Amino acid sequence: MIETRELNFDTAGPGDIIDITANLAALVKEAAITSGTMTVFVPGSTGGLTTVEYEPGLLKDLPEFFEKIIPSKQTYHHDETWHDGNGFSHVRAALVGPDITVPFVGSRLTLGTWQQVVFLEFDNRSRRRTLIVQLMGE
Amino acid sequence: MIETRELNFDTAGPGDIIDITANLAALVKEAAITSGTMTVFVPGSTGGLTTVEYEPGLLKDLPEFFEKIIPSKQTYHHDETWHDGNGFSHVRAALVGPDITVPFVGSRLTLGTWQQVVFLEFDNRSRRRTLIVQLMGE
Amino acid sequence: MIETRELNFDTAGPGDIIDITANLAALVKEAAITSGTMTVFVPGSTGGLTTVEYEPGLLKDLPEFFEKIIPSKQTYHHDETWHDGNGFSHVRAALVGPDITVPFVGSRLTLGTWQQVVFLEFDNRSRRRTLIVQLMGE
Repeated sequence: MIETRELNFDTAGPGDIIDITANLAALVKEAAITSGTMTVFVPGSTGGLTTVEYEPGLLKDLPEFFEKIIPSKQTYHHDETWHDGNGFSHVRAALVGPDITVPFVGSRLTLGTWQQVVFLEFDNRSRRRTLIVQLMGE
Repeated sequence: MIETRELNFDTAGPGDIIDITANLAALVKEAAITSGTMTVFVPGSTGGLTTVEYEPGLLKDLPEFFEKIIPSKQTYHHDETWHDGNGFSHVRAALVGPDITVPFVGSRLTLGTWQQVVFLEFDNRSRRRTLIVQLMGE
Repeated sequence: MIETRELNFDTAGPGDIIDITANLAALVKEAAITSGTMTVFVPGSTGGLTTVEYEPGLLKDLPEFFEKIIPSKQTYHHDETWHDGNGFSHVRAALVGPDITVPFVGSRLTLGTWQQVVFLEFDNRSRRRTLIVQLMGE
């Protein structure tokens, strides 16, 4: 059995980290499928998905890390193509990746207590985001 | 239902980025399964998979980024073991990861308009590559 | 069909890289499901999963790489929140990601000959780890 849903939300721009765990848990709870895998996917090339302990310190540490290894002020060849100034966003998103798969059992995601699923906004402006959430199982 | 396929292609060596989106879309279109997840996997430890807007600027930005954080000219302990000079390839591949999962619905991958699935060749020579593509769904 | 299992092991602390391939292969061999996808997931935010050629050189190269881009001696905002000194662990884990999906066919994982699935211990102390392993297929 398969159920495909969408998750919609707004982001505040570069460096924004959105905790989508409660939304995903609700989709799993509502679904007819009780055990299986949840695949979350970003249909775009300037955002990423991972998990993190969602606390104020790490919400600063992660953007500082990406700024250090893929600086936003540097010039990228991408910017020469489109002149939209978000070359750094594309490189960061390619590194982190657009997908995450989390197993669930008994209608509960198998996340750790201090682990949240987060969307990383890498684009250089606020965005309306739509994620694909697909549940597969029995 | 499950269908497992292979995708074969040649790469030009280090820094080569291959757009495999059209091949993957064709496999989805031909399949009896119309909705589900597509898992693509690199059976090897010197290549990676991610998504990116496939345009000439980023095809330079990504290799430059990997060269900056994992230089090809540096000596790696791996090279002391095998003397094949591709220690940097292994570290880059471990960082990016060998797998990507993309949902599909109505025989179409849920990719964004400006988003392509790419194979990143990290090895230090041209290679004949085989990827595993597994479709699961209904 | 779905089978969900756990994998338990101890780690030696930061920089430890555990080859879990034989354990995963055994779970696939024992399962009633013979073809499908295996999803491995870390229910925690200080460990990661990827694949690598498991040889002594790379077991040094990977920790050196992470030490270079995300130094353990640096102060992180996370440490100001919890004072447990593992801010670097969280940033490394968020970068690598907690999940990996490997297809299997005929009760065999589609790994390359020189490719192993590894757990990366990023925490700053030895840990008892439990991973979720979910097999889905037919």
